[in-house]
Amino acid sequence: MRIKVINPNTSWDMTRRIEAAAKMYAARGTEVVAVSPERGPPIITSRYDDAIAVVGLLEEVKKGVRDGFDGFVVAAFIDTGLYEAREAEEAPVVGIAEAAMHMACLLGDKFSIVTISKRMVPVIEGLVRRYGLKEKCASIRVPEGDILAYRGEPGKMRDALARASRMAIEEDMAEVIILGGGAMAGLDVELEEELGVPVIDGVVAAVKLVEAVCGYGKKTSKAYSYRWPDRKEFKGHPEILEKWPDEG
Amino acid sequence: MRIKVINPNTSWDMTRRIEAAAKMYAARGTEVVAVSPERGPPIITSRYDDAIAVVGLLEEVKKGVRDGFDGFVVAAFIDTGLYEAREAEEAPVVGIAEAAMHMACLLGDKFSIVTISKRMVPVIEGLVRRYGLKEKCASIRVPEGDILAYRGEPGKMRDALARASRMAIEEDMAEVIILGGGAMAGLDVELEEELGVPVIDGVVAAVKLVEAVCGYGKKTSKAYSYRWPDRKEFKGHPEILEKWPDEG
Amino acid sequence: MRIKVINPNTSWDMTRRIEAAAKMYAARGTEVVAVSPERGPPIITSRYDDAIAVVGLLEEVKKGVRDGFDGFVVAAFIDTGLYEAREAEEAPVVGIAEAAMHMACLLGDKFSIVTISKRMVPVIEGLVRRYGLKEKCASIRVPEGDILAYRGEPGKMRDALARASRMAIEEDMAEVIILGGGAMAGLDVELEEELGVPVIDGVVAAVKLVEAVCGYGKKTSKAYSYRWPDRKEFKGHPEILEKWPDEG
Amino acid sequence: MRIKVINPNTSWDMTRRIEAAAKMYAARGTEVVAVSPERGPPIITSRYDDAIAVVGLLEEVKKGVRDGFDGFVVAAFIDTGLYEAREAEEAPVVGIAEAAMHMACLLGDKFSIVTISKRMVPVIEGLVRRYGLKEKCASIRVPEGDILAYRGEPGKMRDALARASRMAIEEDMAEVIILGGGAMAGLDVELEEELGVPVIDGVVAAVKLVEAVCGYGKKTSKAYSYRWPDRKEFKGHPEILEKWPDEG
Amino acid sequence: MRIKVINPNTSWDMTRRIEAAAKMYAARGTEVVAVSPERGPPIITSRYDDAIAVVGLLEEVKKGVRDGFDGFVVAAFIDTGLYEAREAEEAPVVGIAEAAMHMACLLGDKFSIVTISKRMVPVIEGLVRRYGLKEKCASIRVPEGDILAYRGEPGKMRDALARASRMAIEEDMAEVIILGGGAMAGLDVELEEELGVPVIDGVVAAVKLVEAVCGYGKKTSKAYSYRWPDRKEFKGHPEILEKWPDEG
Amino acid sequence: MRIKVINPNTSWDMTRRIEAAAKMYAARGTEVVAVSPERGPPIITSRYDDAIAVVGLLEEVKKGVRDGFDGFVVAAFIDTGLYEAREAEEAPVVGIAEAAMHMACLLGDKFSIVTISKRMVPVIEGLVRRYGLKEKCASIRVPEGDILAYRGEPGKMRDALARASRMAIEEDMAEVIILGGGAMAGLDVELEEELGVPVIDGVVAAVKLVEAVCGYGKKTSKAYSYRWPDRKEFKGHPEILEKWPDEG
Repeated sequence: MRIKVINPNTSWDMTRRIEAAAKMYAARGTEVVAVSPERGPPIITSRYDDAIAVVGLLEEVKKGVRDGFDGFVVAAFIDTGLYEAREAEEAPVVGIAEAAMHMACLLGDKFSIVTISKRMVPVIEGLVRRYGLKEKCASIRVPEGDILAYRGEPGKMRDALARASRMAIEEDMAEVIILGGGAMAGLDVELEEELGVPVIDGVVAAVKLVEAVCGYGKKTSKAYSYRWPDRKEFKGHPEILEKWPDEG
Repeated sequence: MRIKVINPNTSWDMTRRIEAAAKMYAARGTEVVAVSPERGPPIITSRYDDAIAVVGLLEEVKKGVRDGFDGFVVAAFIDTGLYEAREAEEAPVVGIAEAAMHMACLLGDKFSIVTISKRMVPVIEGLVRRYGLKEKCASIRVPEGDILAYRGEPGKMRDALARASRMAIEEDMAEVIILGGGAMAGLDVELEEELGVPVIDGVVAAVKLVEAVCGYGKKTSKAYSYRWPDRKEFKGHPEILEKWPDEG
Repeated sequence: MRIKVINPNTSWDMTRRIEAAAKMYAARGTEVVAVSPERGPPIITSRYDDAIAVVGLLEEVKKGVRDGFDGFVVAAFIDTGLYEAREAEEAPVVGIAEAAMHMACLLGDKFSIVTISKRMVPVIEGLVRRYGLKEKCASIRVPEGDILAYRGEPGKMRDALARASRMAIEEDMAEVIILGGGAMAGLDVELEEELGVPVIDGVVAAVKLVEAVCGYGKKTSKAYSYRWPDRKEFKGHPEILEKWPDEG
Repeated sequence: MRIKVINPNTSWDMTRRIEAAAKMYAARGTEVVAVSPERGPPIITSRYDDAIAVVGLLEEVKKGVRDGFDGFVVAAFIDTGLYEAREAEEAPVVGIAEAAMHMACLLGDKFSIVTISKRMVPVIEGLVRRYGLKEKCASIRVPEGDILAYRGEPGKMRDALARASRMAIEEDMAEVIILGGGAMAGLDVELEEELGVPVIDGVVAAVKLVEAVCGYGKKTSKAYSYRWPDRKEFKGHPEILEKWPDEG
Repeated sequence: MRIKVINPNTSWDMTRRIEAAAKMYAARGTEVVAVSPERGPPIITSRYDDAIAVVGLLEEVKKGVRDGFDGFVVAAFIDTGLYEAREAEEAPVVGIAEAAMHMACLLGDKFSIVTISKRMVPVIEGLVRRYGLKEKCASIRVPEGDILAYRGEPGKMRDALARASRMAIEEDMAEVIILGGGAMAGLDVELEEELGVPVIDGVVAAVKLVEAVCGYGKKTSKAYSYRWPDRKEFKGHPEILEKWPDEG
Repeated sequence: MRIKVINPNTSWDMTRRIEAAAKMYAARGTEVVAVSPERGPPIITSRYDDAIAVVGLLEEVKKGVRDGFDGFVVAAFIDTGLYEAREAEEAPVVGIAEAAMHMACLLGDKFSIVTISKRMVPVIEGLVRRYGLKEKCASIRVPEGDILAYRGEPGKMRDALARASRMAIEEDMAEVIILGGGAMAGLDVELEEELGVPVIDGVVAAVKLVEAVCGYGKKTSKAYSYRWPDRKEFKGHPEILEKWPDEG
């Protein structure tokens, strides 16, 4: 099984960490390749950035179709272009926010999501509602301090996340913690030990769920929502977006 | 007051009809300009198309900021890039789906939306939920036949819409009908006469609501959701997307 | 366009302040008249008062029909008799709570309402739910101290409202503040400057929305909810309540 | 125990039938008195009528307080002035729609309400939502034909109700049927035999629930929603509305 | 009328206190018998215990059917086997959590439940949702300290409950308090006096509601949810579970 | 990885078919063992049967803990004792209804569940709500005819399921079909080919999700809901229920 993990952020060092996390947990026989698109923001920190990142992501999905991947992971916690990618492809596509939430539901009654900034709270709330999981979400918490600034200092980041997670567990009665951002990748094990409840990194959850869906031989439904897009010419957009699987 | 109506579809004949409808109802003293972006699909018929249309739409918003418009209307019933545009601007931005739904709430207990294809039903349902108005939506109905094919035959289109609307009124107890697609622009008056309940064209509703918001002197909140995007370089994307109001 | 603003409280000094606010923002060509009914409580501070105020309000609507007004505003934040007025009339009727909430949705992801007393919280919560906007309401907050007692001291009232609003913004993540009571009329501009997010006075919002609806030529749907009431004799009630538009 | 049943409709023949039904099921030791107010519509068939009926109802509650009743039933299926009566009194007040729904929840998974006209559907839907019971309501159905016209022909009315109820059971999977209107009083037993599922007359349900609440010695909470109204002078309204229990 | 109160906990001293409370409020003519099953946990403190207690409870229901009881109360705040008992019987069965919540709705806008341990919070939340009453539940609160350890010290327990209740009233705006556990039985009157809002003991509420339902002559609907179970042989389970009313 | 699949029905032929389906899709390196408990109903067709089946299921979980299984599947579509098993164990436990629903969410916007009898509809609706997935469930449909009677005639069963599924797709806009009953195991592939949308057998979905969760090294959260039960003596119940992992 070959899974393509697409980090819609164009900063490759994050992509490499994502790939490492994905590979660590991939099943025997699963090959994981992680990439960043050729166009898009270095790091997505708003809906605006997210919308601009979609085109690059869709290009990578189209290339992945051509290259015969069995499944795809969208590796930004805002699930950039997830539904659009499902329209453009038949092979399963799973977003890391979506995957983390569904897996969390199997491990505890309610989950909390720890994310990087207050502006992302309504955005992630929108995702929770879109996936129909509002009643399972205890809270969305933002650690104090500037999480992105801690990227070079994993100790500081871990401490800030641990504090926010502990409040989610004690005050909001979260039973599972979801790390809501690529920048936190790789901290799940350490935090889980410290907190005593499951801590989920969406990248790993998504890879495992793509394996599960592919292992069962399922493909995206083409009934209504994810029907193939109509073939048309997009003014001013890269050619690859207008090509379909059967066109080579 | 100057309002820029952006039709994210790149087919100008639809844009011209939208402009005509908007101008017919604009208040004295309101100037309306309708445009299509330079890039994007000729007509949006899926989420995929919608996502690709966002970049072109945002470019038009940025240009509109530079040109000093007082407010913006996003004129595709999928409300392309609405939240992203609000991040990129301070002046009010209103989507035509959003506007039609809010106005319908002032006229009847529940509304139904008549749209062009079954694949759009879950998409529009997503919008209804995003605007928090699920309890006010009696149904989303799709007329039989190929609505888009009727674009040259207004009589056929009107009849198909009237049949679907009547079922919404009788079976789903809709009290207001919303025309869910730019292709239906201009049919509101005729249908209203035939059906005996208010029929709303989102373009007009949006222009009137932008007038209302601007007339009260309100601007988009920059508290959390629509905070200005962080300034950054977008690999492979037009320069205009990286510029902010104060940069000229 | 002629809009009749009916303040169901019988204290005319509040009515005069409401009229001033409405006139300040009315569009060119809009004539605004504000009145208090002949019967009812001096100020509505409970559901009990509200129910008793309805008869007087309906009488004013009936007179307004006779006088040919194009639209009506119900100017108490409990939206006294709003649905009943819609039954009794065809011209648009908008409540100030309703208007404030719908307009807030166009400006930010969530709004908070600041109201005058704890007993009004469940009442307003009922309104929020009735308009189907529960998911857009971050909180309903009551300032500390006796807001009504501050009516002669705008400084004190403003400070109390500012404190409550700030908590709504910081703790509940409100992006728009709604002033939930006629007593707070006229403080919107000042508070908006202080808080940095949109602050909405329902009276202005309602006038602007009536203008929007009338400008589009829409009337209340008579399909089900707001069908004309059956003609009947009301024992012990003023004659005017039993008359219909076509009876003069 | 003395229970005052107030039928806010001013037609005494309905009141007498209501009293008969209530007395048939009242417990040993419960005295039931049914009355109509001095003012109000002969029969409530819209929100407009309902709003006008409130004043008369509140007057009867006030008199009932003076006369020392232990509990009150509001006997119109629109629960006229229920919350306002709770403010005005301490003794339990139960509405017949409310009572029927709560009792139905003890007997089956979901209930359907059969009501007299389509215009009442959104009104009753509003009640269902107000009582927080939306998920327990399978449907609100309106029998074909003019139910009110059948008042002299119980056979015709029963047949029309039976047909609508059967559709609710078979198509909407209702497990309990609620008769949603005073005009249907007394048909519960006959219909229950025919349909094979519990059929509830709200008047009886309300009397039994008032007995239950009074038997446990509970009174309406005065914490927030139903706090005593502030004492004030109501311009142009009967004096009795301004008096409180301790004033005689 | 004869009501069988089944405490699914096998500790008879709790059962005796439950019986005392039930008898104190039973109507004239109501005979109450309280029992504990022959098998099951001494006290239910988790879902695990609850599931194991069901078999014993169902045996007692079956015996009660044979003994001709008119109605049943399930007297653990987790409503052990309530729906299963309804399948196995036709006479009304009411749970104490269910009864407390429905009665609370008649007395105030929102209720809070005070329960014994944090692990019960999601369990009770599940009940609230199952009864469709989520919007009426202000909060579920757990007093500080080990409530079960206070069983011998009613003063300490009352103080802990009062503190938790007061927070529910002041911070969550609860208008009615529900005592969420058999261990708190008998403290309702004292707490109500102290708190000034209605305090409900589910055992009493359930007895009164069974009286109400039986007094109206209603039985459990056998339409879908509570249809009689199919007759079958349960491997390794007591014979009584396989017998039906008509088999003696 | 060793997964124990527990079919709480005591009929081993169904268990053997379940095992076959599970093994067909298990990953390389996954060992699957399917069992039926020693006590319980031959086939669960009601809540009553389900409650009685729990004890046998928990015994099998306890034995599985002793035998060192890595994960568990509860293989009845009513998810018998799922939450109780999670309390009793630390290794992941997944129900087949739960698994089917979560996997369906990754493949289409909405799913429909096809189940065996009308009495199961409210039961499954309860599960959908418990997992917080109500908005993703398009409908629960029951094929015409007696599905259980078709167990020997797979052709008839498949045709009945196909008809019900097609109505779910066309009328309810389901994009994924879930087979809601063990009796339908093994028909997923055939039906998927016929219907053209993904058809999910919960047994396979559950095995794949247990693999996913175990592959990521996650265990059930012991924070609140699934905390270890308190050690106590269960009167009249098998000893094994009172033993804990560390006791051997």
